Amino acid sequence: MAESDVRIVDFFYEIGLLKRYKRTGWVIAGVPDPESIADHSHRTAVIASAIAALEGADPQRAAFLAFFHDSQETRTTDIPHLGKRYLKAASNTEVTGDQTAALPGPLADVVGSAVAGYEARDSAESVCARDADKLECLLQAVEYREQGNRHTQAWIDTSLASLKTASAKWLAEEALRRGPLEWMHRAREEKPEL
Amino acid sequence: MAESDVRIVDFFYEIGLLKRYKRTGWVIAGVPDPESIADHSHRTAVIASAIAALEGADPQRAAFLAFFHDSQETRTTDIPHLGKRYLKAASNTEVTGDQTAALPGPLADVVGSAVAGYEARDSAESVCARDADKLECLLQAVEYREQGNRHTQAWIDTSLASLKTASAKWLAEEALRRGPLEWMHRAREEKPEL
Amino acid sequence: MAESDVRIVDFFYEIGLLKRYKRTGWVIAGVPDPESIADHSHRTAVIASAIAALEGADPQRAAFLAFFHDSQETRTTDIPHLGKRYLKAASNTEVTGDQTAALPGPLADVVGSAVAGYEARDSAESVCARDADKLECLLQAVEYREQGNRHTQAWIDTSLASLKTASAKWLAEEALRRGPLEWMHRAREEKPEL
Amino acid sequence: MAESDVRIVDFFYEIGLLKRYKRTGWVIAGVPDPESIADHSHRTAVIASAIAALEGADPQRAAFLAFFHDSQETRTTDIPHLGKRYLKAASNTEVTGDQTAALPGPLADVVGSAVAGYEARDSAESVCARDADKLECLLQAVEYREQGNRHTQAWIDTSLASLKTASAKWLAEEALRRGPLEWMHRAREEKPEL
Amino acid sequence: MAESDVRIVDFFYEIGLLKRYKRTGWVIAGVPDPESIADHSHRTAVIASAIAALEGADPQRAAFLAFFHDSQETRTTDIPHLGKRYLKAASNTEVTGDQTAALPGPLADVVGSAVAGYEARDSAESVCARDADKLECLLQAVEYREQGNRHTQAWIDTSLASLKTASAKWLAEEALRRGPLEWMHRAREEKPEL
Amino acid sequence: MAESDVRIVDFFYEIGLLKRYKRTGWVIAGVPDPESIADHSHRTAVIASAIAALEGADPQRAAFLAFFHDSQETRTTDIPHLGKRYLKAASNTEVTGDQTAALPGPLADVVGSAVAGYEARDSAESVCARDADKLECLLQAVEYREQGNRHTQAWIDTSLASLKTASAKWLAEEALRRGPLEWMHRAREEKPEL
Repeated sequence: MAESDVRIVDFFYEIGLLKRYKRTGWVIAGVPDPESIADHSHRTAVIASAIAALEGADPQRAAFLAFFHDSQETRTTDIPHLGKRYLKAASNTEVTGDQTAALPGPLADVVGSAVAGYEARDSAESVCARDADKLECLLQAVEYREQGNRHTQAWIDTSLASLKTASAKWLAEEALRRGPLEWMHRAREEKPEL
Repeated sequence: MAESDVRIVDFFYEIGLLKRYKRTGWVIAGVPDPESIADHSHRTAVIASAIAALEGADPQRAAFLAFFHDSQETRTTDIPHLGKRYLKAASNTEVTGDQTAALPGPLADVVGSAVAGYEARDSAESVCARDADKLECLLQAVEYREQGNRHTQAWIDTSLASLKTASAKWLAEEALRRGPLEWMHRAREEKPEL
Repeated sequence: MAESDVRIVDFFYEIGLLKRYKRTGWVIAGVPDPESIADHSHRTAVIASAIAALEGADPQRAAFLAFFHDSQETRTTDIPHLGKRYLKAASNTEVTGDQTAALPGPLADVVGSAVAGYEARDSAESVCARDADKLECLLQAVEYREQGNRHTQAWIDTSLASLKTASAKWLAEEALRRGPLEWMHRAREEKPEL
Repeated sequence: MAESDVRIVDFFYEIGLLKRYKRTGWVIAGVPDPESIADHSHRTAVIASAIAALEGADPQRAAFLAFFHDSQETRTTDIPHLGKRYLKAASNTEVTGDQTAALPGPLADVVGSAVAGYEARDSAESVCARDADKLECLLQAVEYREQGNRHTQAWIDTSLASLKTASAKWLAEEALRRGPLEWMHRAREEKPEL
Repeated sequence: MAESDVRIVDFFYEIGLLKRYKRTGWVIAGVPDPESIADHSHRTAVIASAIAALEGADPQRAAFLAFFHDSQETRTTDIPHLGKRYLKAASNTEVTGDQTAALPGPLADVVGSAVAGYEARDSAESVCARDADKLECLLQAVEYREQGNRHTQAWIDTSLASLKTASAKWLAEEALRRGPLEWMHRAREEKPEL
Repeated sequence: MAESDVRIVDFFYEIGLLKRYKRTGWVIAGVPDPESIADHSHRTAVIASAIAALEGADPQRAAFLAFFHDSQETRTTDIPHLGKRYLKAASNTEVTGDQTAALPGPLADVVGSAVAGYEARDSAESVCARDADKLECLLQAVEYREQGNRHTQAWIDTSLASLKTASAKWLAEEALRRGPLEWMHRAREEKPEL
């Protein structure tokens, strides 16, 4: 195999760091043992595909963009808003460029175009993926609120204010209306016991 | 909006449970604070896209299949091998059917076809996604081994033995040859200090 | 020693898994770092002996039944209510039979009769132990509520509704009237400082 | 109900603190997220019943003594060996007396006699329960060793040296010979797949 | 080097235990994953220097006294109020004497005089450091209250009642008026974005 | 009180964030539940006072410099080495300036001069405090190694190579020769049982 193929394993191990990095905002809010960046990215991709389905965009592509949207944080970590006033960061595109420089061309292209597509904000899928990032944060804020934390309103407000698509806005309003565990009660009613 | 649209929010909250459910195998192995199912699913999708790129399959599709491959575990939990001898589970397709029954048709189709595609094992993307599931487990086992756990060899062996594609087999061998943090040392050498 | 004696050690290691398995319901509710099955079983046995004392049953026997009441979960895990609609489980008696099959006869009998006694619901001690299981859950729900979680009411209601003995019902009502830390304030008042 | 009946609820809440108190020795050893006192007490009772069965004592009584053996630590906490050189503690019997003073007589007697019986060391069941306490510690030390910790040998040596019964000594030697997860591999071999 | 120099390393390792010991009060209150004794000591020293600056005492000295004020707990652990009724502890001065007995004289003197100075309560710096210990607890109680815990009022009341200096009392009142995350919003307003 | 006095409370809450921020290096190494920045700062100050005592510098001043050495990380977070290649940070002096801008002059001066003194590297106390920072990291690396982690050698090597004073170098060598729990065994031997 070529040296570039060998470097794929490095890329896998690097991406794995997203499982261990906690979302910094929740640490600031004092959430005990908060979600990882990978946790957040996983649901963001699910949400992106749903928003895309509602908005007439390509669900699979939107999920893929969403999926890699924080992948640079293996190198830059998850800098909170206040930190961004003290830390001038390289662009996400530059970081992705370094992360994929040694990978085989086809794989580097797949990842690079996903990040570039997300950053460009010029496609329906990018808009859906970006809304998914915010909506996911709102949902998580609601969940942490129900688990006890009283600082979550700022996250809810900020997320809500930054949504672009009609679908995301409507889903956010609905998410604020119902509880995070209602799905389970509904599922139990719908499914007969064995 | 239609009632089925409202149910999308339920689906988002349901998927969020994958952030809180820990992978049961690692609990058995005694790994402290192990990864979530969402953590695992995130890297599995990255790996699926890479294997697909190497194998000439569609990386984005393979990632999408991988992405939903454990999504049923919101309802069935992550049953360990021993448990499967005592618990007869509904098929993944049946569970997905229930999870998506109340969703708008286009979204239900997107999710349902991803799960059906993964389960069918009849496409190159399904094979890549399934190998990604195993390879991800192997990488995580190596990481937990380096973090101290002495029970990981069984997970490495089982994962290795079940790989199908030449690419995944070769990547697994390479993953066993190098350490999980080598990528960082390499990245630091390649990138000049600011 | 006989091979069956050697297998006692296996049984000890197996039971130890109950320390690592978290109670699934609390994970669903989003309780951070929730109690283990062993934690739950410990207080359930204390409560069982108290209910038995009040109900004129044998406290030690009730505690012993309570003590083993979730011991099958080393093999079946703690399946939540929704999961039970998707997973058909072997009976607890069957699982215990497998767990103790290789043990020396007298020990297998002790464990087997405790589980059979609990499952049969035909003795006062079984009724007390089963009420203890529910009352323990109610107490824990109150504690998690006071620690911040807002999802606990469903656990309180379900536990309360399933109690059978007058003593358990009365204790549950009392538990809802007083706070989980009042005992400590009372203990400090009653005990002079050194 | 009488005031003494009301105090039973206080006793339940007090005992629940054993779920939250971690075993101090493991904190000193640097075990991440170690077992609780309740976790330890649960397996100690299982072991006590097994040793009693082997030694011809009453398994249920031995378990009951073992079950309450650290119940005073709700008030005294789990003081490590070094700490005992700086802290002169009230006797366990005195603490139990305070814990149960306000309880209804029959319940106070049940708990009080269990603690007195354990402390007196004058019955076969007490000897079995005390050996169970040490053997449980040894098993846990082996498990933490296999999970990575390198400080466990001191706990193994101390536990081994303090065992009294032939059964416990033999079980300890056997526990050191086999791995903590062998039971699971054996169970999987013995049980046919569904 | 002399034997006493070698023992400095032992002292460093011993002090490191304060990172692993959790503050017992918060465990009792059911705070998940609470602060360590070292965490508490760190902010206590910051607060001590601030109170000293306001009270016209020596900030650096006050911080130094505060810094070592719980250093004996490596040996005595953090005994809660109820526990102090059952455990008669050696004096802090005696424990510090043992901790530093084998250290080189100058270092033993530095640590010993810091502890003696804190315990004597006869200097302005000692008074400031002691108020800092209480005020730190109050701030932490407010933070845990905002993170969900409902048991914190007792800690707030006790801390408030024991403050001696006008500065600490005034700071405590102010701390109860504003939220724990207001500093961040204020900091973001004051600092222009990059 | 003046507005600047009110802002002291903000400063206290800000410093408290150091309890919740974990040291990023250990997250990368995969240490479960690693130490906080406050944990690290606490022992660093102890070590700084000891090195100063050995080197003929002012122990209290060295501790004070060490104490604030990472206090800027409330705003900048703990950026790992790789991240520093992608993030250009404001100087520590600038951050401290912002943190203390609204504080009363005397307190701002106390904190500001401590940070400036640490950063200037032009005093014996600064050199001791900087060596303490590295030596503390080395000790922690040894502790995590003994708790199971296999990635610690890089932290040990880097810390060792950057030490400046003869005392710190000698202490580091000694720290590598003895185990992290030897102090406890020695303390138990030296102290008679009660």
